[in-house]
Amino acid sequence: MKILEARTRTAAIGRPVRNAAIGFEAMTASALALVTDRGTGYAFDSIGRYGKEGLLRERFIPRLLNSPLQGLADEKGLIDPDACVRAVMANEKPGGHGERPGAVGLIEAAAWDLRAKLLGVPLWKALAERYGTRNASPEIAAYATCGHWGDDTSLADEVRRALDAGYACIKIKIAGDLGADLPRIETARRLASRLAVDVNGALSRESAEKWLDALALFGLEWIEEPAPPLDFELLRKYSELSRTPLATGENLFSLDDARNLLRYGGLRPERDFVQVDPLLSYGVGEYVRILELFAAWDRRQFLPHAGHLFAAHCVAGLGLGMAEAAPDASLAYGGYWDGVRPAGGRLTIPDAPGVGFERKRQLFALLEDV
Amino acid sequence: MKILEARTRTAAIGRPVRNAAIGFEAMTASALALVTDRGTGYAFDSIGRYGKEGLLRERFIPRLLNSPLQGLADEKGLIDPDACVRAVMANEKPGGHGERPGAVGLIEAAAWDLRAKLLGVPLWKALAERYGTRNASPEIAAYATCGHWGDDTSLADEVRRALDAGYACIKIKIAGDLGADLPRIETARRLASRLAVDVNGALSRESAEKWLDALALFGLEWIEEPAPPLDFELLRKYSELSRTPLATGENLFSLDDARNLLRYGGLRPERDFVQVDPLLSYGVGEYVRILELFAAWDRRQFLPHAGHLFAAHCVAGLGLGMAEAAPDASLAYGGYWDGVRPAGGRLTIPDAPGVGFERKRQLFALLEDV
Repeated sequence: MKILEARTRTAAIGRPVRNAAIGFEAMTASALALVTDRGTGYAFDSIGRYGKEGLLRERFIPRLLNSPLQGLADEKGLIDPDACVRAVMANEKPGGHGERPGAVGLIEAAAWDLRAKLLGVPLWKALAERYGTRNASPEIAAYATCGHWGDDTSLADEVRRALDAGYACIKIKIAGDLGADLPRIETARRLASRLAVDVNGALSRESAEKWLDALALFGLEWIEEPAPPLDFELLRKYSELSRTPLATGENLFSLDDARNLLRYGGLRPERDFVQVDPLLSYGVGEYVRILELFAAWDRRQFLPHAGHLFAAHCVAGLGLGMAEAAPDASLAYGGYWDGVRPAGGRLTIPDAPGVGFERKRQLFALLEDV
Repeated sequence: MKILEARTRTAAIGRPVRNAAIGFEAMTASALALVTDRGTGYAFDSIGRYGKEGLLRERFIPRLLNSPLQGLADEKGLIDPDACVRAVMANEKPGGHGERPGAVGLIEAAAWDLRAKLLGVPLWKALAERYGTRNASPEIAAYATCGHWGDDTSLADEVRRALDAGYACIKIKIAGDLGADLPRIETARRLASRLAVDVNGALSRESAEKWLDALALFGLEWIEEPAPPLDFELLRKYSELSRTPLATGENLFSLDDARNLLRYGGLRPERDFVQVDPLLSYGVGEYVRILELFAAWDRRQFLPHAGHLFAAHCVAGLGLGMAEAAPDASLAYGGYWDGVRPAGGRLTIPDAPGVGFERKRQLFALLEDV
C-alpha cells in the first residue's frame, strides 16, 4: 500500500439557525480524502464544530505522509487506523486537548502588545492598571529550565551555564524512574541551591510512592507534572504522598479545566504551584479569571509555563511568582531582552512600550518577517 | 483605530531534544502581527505546543477583521484585548477546548473508510470484527434532532416532518428557561411519543431545580447538556435533582475527559446517556477505550453525537444505542444513504463497502471535490 496524497477542504455548512448557546451561520466542517494506490478513504466532520483544515494540512497530514508505510499497515497489509493515529500523534503532548485556546490567546497577546504601545507603557504596567494589581513591579524572578535529553552539553555544564547566566532557581527534566533520575538530581543539586524537577506526566505509578519518598530528601522547590495533566484523581493521591511541593497546569487551557484542578486535584494553596500558561489559555483575561477562582491562593504560587517575554510581563503585571526561562540567550525565544541579564535569579523588564519584542533583536527579526 | 491586517506565520523552533514524554525535533510556534493604523501589535507563541496558523487564518483572524471596529476599542479608543477575544470567540461552543482530537479523528475515519473498502465490507462490519462486538447488526436505531431557532418552519411542522420521514424519537432544542421551554415541549410532546430535549449547557442555575421538576412531568427520553460540558460538579447536582435521564459528553474529546465525567459527573449507568463523538475525539480507537472505561454501562446508553454516516456505522458496529440524525435528507449531511429511509425509527445500513459515502450523492459530490 502506498499513500499517494491526503487532501482536505473546508466545507461551508452554515444555516441561519441557533441553539441555546451559539449560532450556526458561519459553521464549517472538514472533508478529507486519503488517496492510496489501493483506493481512497473519505471522512467528513461531525457537524457542530468548525473545520480544522490548517491543523490537518500543517501538522497531521505531513506526519502521515512521512511515516514509514509499513508502519501504517497491519500484518495483512491493510491500512491500520490505530497505527495512523499513532503516526499523527507523534510528539504531541499528553492532555490539554486544545488548540483553540492557544489561537485565541495569541490574538489577545498581540492586542495587548498594541494596547500597551498605544498607552506608551511597558505591557506589565498596562496589565497592572487594567487588573488593579497592587504589588506590580518590573523586577521579577525567573527560573531556568534545563536538562532536556539530546542536548550536546552535559547536564552539569548546562546547569552551570544557567547559574553563570544569572539564574538562581534551576529546573531539570527527569524521567520518572528512580534509577535514571537520582544521578541527574544529585548532579544538579550539587550545583544549584534551588532545584526543581519536571517529570512531564511520565512518573511510573507502581513505583510512585517510593520515588516521591526518595525525592523528598533533596529539598526540591517542586516536582512538576507527576500525574498526566487531566488525571486529577492521581494527582490528588500524589499530593497526599508527596512531601515536596507539586506543580502542574501547563496543559490545562481554560477556566473550566483549572476549576476541575482546584476541585479535584488535591493541591494545597500554601505549598503547591499552578503553571497555567496565559498564551495557551485564551489570554490574560481568562488567566485573571483563573486567578480569581483561586482566590485563597497567594499569587506567588502561580508560575506561568513558558511564554517568554509576554509571560514575564504577566508575572510583573499580575504579581505572580516566577517566569520560566530558556536560559540560552542565543536562541530567539531564550534569555530575555538584549542587554537584560538576570542577577541572583531576578531581572528588571526594560522600560519599552508593549512587550518590547523590538528589544530582542533575534525574535523581532522573526516577527517583522511575519 | 483601523485594523489593516493580521498576519501569521509558523516558525520552526525544533531542537533535537526530548523531555520524559515527547521529542521536540519538529516543534513549531505561531507568530502574529496585528497591523493597525495606530501601530502594530506582535505575539509569539508560548513554546511547547505546535503552531496553529491554519486556525488563526481560517477562523479567528477573519472574525477579528470582520468585527465592527468600534466594538474592539474601549471608551478611550484603545484596542481592548477582552473585546478582541469576545469577537473571535463568537459562536464557539462552550467547553471542549480542543481541535487536535477532531483533526486526528478525521484522519482515523478516512483510514477506516479505506480499510473497510479494502476488506470489501461495510464499515460497521470491519469495526465489529476489529473490536469483537457480539451484537453488531446493520439495523440500527436513529433519532432526529429538530427545533433550532431561526428555521423558517414552525416547530410543530418540523417535528411532524421528522416523524413522517420515519423517525420515532425526536430531540428538540430548548433554551433553559421554563417560560420559553414549556410551550415548545408541549407542542412537540403532542406529536412525538418519544421526545428528548437539548439545552446545550444554557440552563439557568437559579431556576434549575424548578425547571427539572417541571420537565419531569413529560416523561422525556433525556435532558441533554443541562450543565456546561466540563462542570462535572454542577452535573452531579443536576443528576441528583433530575427524575429525567440526563445525557452529555458531546463536548468531551478524550479518554481523559470521559474519565473525569465518569468519576465526578454523578451519572447513573442504568439511566443516563453518554454522547461522546468518535469523529471529534481521536477516532474509534479512543472511543472504544472510553467504552471499556465505562465497563459497568450497557453500550446502549451510548448515543454518539452527530457524525452522520460514520457515526451510524459506529452504532451498528459497536452495539451502541442510537445514531443522531439531521432529518432533512435534502441536506448533504442530513438523512442517510440515498434510498435508505428509517421506519419506526430504525434503518438498515446498505451493504456497500466502507462508509458508503458514494451512496449519498450530495455528500459524495463534496468529497470527490476535495
